[in-house]
Amino acid sequence: MLKRLAIGFCCWLGSLTLYAQNGVLVFQSDFGLKDGAVSAMKGVALGVSTNLHLVDLTHDIPAFNIWEAAYRLLQTAPYYPKGTVFVSVCDPGVGTERKSVVLLTKTGHYFVTPDNGTLTLIAEKMGVQEVRQINEAINRLKSSEESYTFHGRDVYAYTAARLAARAISFEQVGKKLPASVTKITYQKPTLEKGLLKGNIPILDVQYGNIWTNIPKDLINQLGAKTGDRLQVEIFNETEKVFSEKIQLVNTFGEAATGENVAYFNSLLNFSVAVNMGNFAEKYHVSSGPSWRIEIKK
Amino acid sequence: MLKRLAIGFCCWLGSLTLYAQNGVLVFQSDFGLKDGAVSAMKGVALGVSTNLHLVDLTHDIPAFNIWEAAYRLLQTAPYYPKGTVFVSVCDPGVGTERKSVVLLTKTGHYFVTPDNGTLTLIAEKMGVQEVRQINEAINRLKSSEESYTFHGRDVYAYTAARLAARAISFEQVGKKLPASVTKITYQKPTLEKGLLKGNIPILDVQYGNIWTNIPKDLINQLGAKTGDRLQVEIFNETEKVFSEKIQLVNTFGEAATGENVAYFNSLLNFSVAVNMGNFAEKYHVSSGPSWRIEIKK
Amino acid sequence: MLKRLAIGFCCWLGSLTLYAQNGVLVFQSDFGLKDGAVSAMKGVALGVSTNLHLVDLTHDIPAFNIWEAAYRLLQTAPYYPKGTVFVSVCDPGVGTERKSVVLLTKTGHYFVTPDNGTLTLIAEKMGVQEVRQINEAINRLKSSEESYTFHGRDVYAYTAARLAARAISFEQVGKKLPASVTKITYQKPTLEKGLLKGNIPILDVQYGNIWTNIPKDLINQLGAKTGDRLQVEIFNETEKVFSEKIQLVNTFGEAATGENVAYFNSLLNFSVAVNMGNFAEKYHVSSGPSWRIEIKK
Repeated sequence: MLKRLAIGFCCWLGSLTLYAQNGVLVFQSDFGLKDGAVSAMKGVALGVSTNLHLVDLTHDIPAFNIWEAAYRLLQTAPYYPKGTVFVSVCDPGVGTERKSVVLLTKTGHYFVTPDNGTLTLIAEKMGVQEVRQINEAINRLKSSEESYTFHGRDVYAYTAARLAARAISFEQVGKKLPASVTKITYQKPTLEKGLLKGNIPILDVQYGNIWTNIPKDLINQLGAKTGDRLQVEIFNETEKVFSEKIQLVNTFGEAATGENVAYFNSLLNFSVAVNMGNFAEKYHVSSGPSWRIEIKK
Repeated sequence: MLKRLAIGFCCWLGSLTLYAQNGVLVFQSDFGLKDGAVSAMKGVALGVSTNLHLVDLTHDIPAFNIWEAAYRLLQTAPYYPKGTVFVSVCDPGVGTERKSVVLLTKTGHYFVTPDNGTLTLIAEKMGVQEVRQINEAINRLKSSEESYTFHGRDVYAYTAARLAARAISFEQVGKKLPASVTKITYQKPTLEKGLLKGNIPILDVQYGNIWTNIPKDLINQLGAKTGDRLQVEIFNETEKVFSEKIQLVNTFGEAATGENVAYFNSLLNFSVAVNMGNFAEKYHVSSGPSWRIEIKK
Repeated sequence: MLKRLAIGFCCWLGSLTLYAQNGVLVFQSDFGLKDGAVSAMKGVALGVSTNLHLVDLTHDIPAFNIWEAAYRLLQTAPYYPKGTVFVSVCDPGVGTERKSVVLLTKTGHYFVTPDNGTLTLIAEKMGVQEVRQINEAINRLKSSEESYTFHGRDVYAYTAARLAARAISFEQVGKKLPASVTKITYQKPTLEKGLLKGNIPILDVQYGNIWTNIPKDLINQLGAKTGDRLQVEIFNETEKVFSEKIQLVNTFGEAATGENVAYFNSLLNFSVAVNMGNFAEKYHVSSGPSWRIEIKK
């Protein structure tokens, strides 16, 4: 009987349980770990519930670098189970008009953040199911109503923890907004007439390798394969910074020390490196929305 | 019947449950995270119980800087739920006569640490309910009785974990001491005849802003309000390092780039900054017990 | 009846429960914490089970420094309860022939890692119970079968999490290998004819102290005691870098500022320091398998 009821409820509950929070709460910020800011956020979260599973993404986002915050979410969120709540606080616009939102993606992940571009890449990757604006009059740590608020702690960590712990439902976050987020403009990966265009979202900092947003599929569509030498040009805004032919390899062992190589990184995106060297330093290449790459056979 | 018994016990258990440990254990140290010291402490804690919730405050306290350890506890502990156990190991006096203690505050938080000044600020903020000296003969990791002991791991982490996991009661920590802790001397916030005095406990390192211990209330009592230009003087010991008029603002947007501004930080304390600049570097101001500030209208 | 059955099972289950995983999963790598690599690994682990207890050892192993990875395991693993699963990813040989293995030690700890020398010290300390090779065809994150794999995330973190969560048994890791691991050669502690030899596995980086692998027992066997002046010589490969008499002390307080002292560190191993100074810098001494020390009375 119980089982029958359970089955009965299933249809009705389907859309709810699809997006049920799993108690995992992931923190990202540009606060660093030298002071108490991150720990204060975690204290607030544990004040909501000691049953939460708190995890760090990174707190070493360069100060106010929204683009990098966006990229780190893209790099990691797909590997977390659905129902995970992410809170990202990289907020140059404290006190300005950017909205505080929670994004629910079509994949069932939640993102609590100022809507300042941080959601650019994750919205594209995971799809926008629904966006709600945090009602800060309600969803705010008690005794934090004074003129100045540490939003990361008092609004974002608090709301994210209550959502993750199911102390509030997604609906109780606040009013529903149009299903879109603020986006940073950048070169999407495109292939036209044998010319591949893309963006350099990030460097592999430890090694100085160049990571692009061009997926392996597009390289395949270009007709390029391992062993081919590809014409690679890199631009910052309109300035051409690099232009050379580079061989596409499977492993770095196929290339001589000091040689430029193209390969696919752990996200299976087209990447460029100096074998046993630092490409970014050698050619003064950096990353961000203004950096573009073009590839021809 | 069971319910009646439960109610009956309530009066008797009242004082106990008020301070019941919640299983959250927060670590602070000056060990850094490059080696295994912090992880060894966590291993010891999980050896006591795998049901503990382990959280980091910070491990980047500058070596032996007791004052900064004290400040980081003040900055974060109030945001953790009561029943949380903190263990702080910043211990220049290993092998000297400082006592190993556990402080229970009136707010119901526990602090396990050498009593070397680390508790200065938290004792003032949260109030001293009771102090006990750790009986190191009993409360010490098995097989650590050799001449040399890594106290952070073998005594502090072990005792804190056993307390947090309720493997021992607060009473079992060791003998009760007088209800006070070792304190570092510094300028408390005072207002006399229109002159506000205070201390600069810490810098907001990422931006070089000056944080004081003067609460907004005292600024209100001084009769200062947003838009006022205040006379601010900063001293290291007896040396005057800075003396200028600074405008009190609500948001940095009200000031020109490069202008000095006064504002309230996330703890609602009086703070000073260069808008889009680094006040500490520009004026060679630092922080600690020897740094004082004076404010006049 | 239930109790009797339980007792009945005990004999049979004995060997299993001896090594039962406890749900604690400890991460080590040379990835740093600035990007999302570590967090992606944790996401994969939480995708396996949200009941795991995730802890960091360190992620600041210098890039590709297998020796230091080996040492950090030695420094910390003995303090974790048996049943703990460690995953260590320091892997200069990605794509080469090193095997991916899980080591079960005689102490009941599990280590998931490329078998490239990382297990050198822990195997000696804890004993090799059994080694299994990870069957990467099965034990690999779904949808990671493309040519390039981020092994740390897709194989090591995934397999370690499944093992820690008991989603797979140790046997299901893969085929049993001979009970040994790849080892890095270094000077073991030996005492012959009054000459003590050993290795300098690591520096106490924060202070520049020299830590050796010579235990207090051997110093006792040498007949040395506190107050003795010992002849200490330090070599890199065959080059003699340091040769002086140094006093063995109980606490640094017994020596003058700037004086060389010998003492026992928190692992109770013979160590050398400059009191209030940096021995490694002063005498250009470093650490690793090529660094040796010799001690005479």
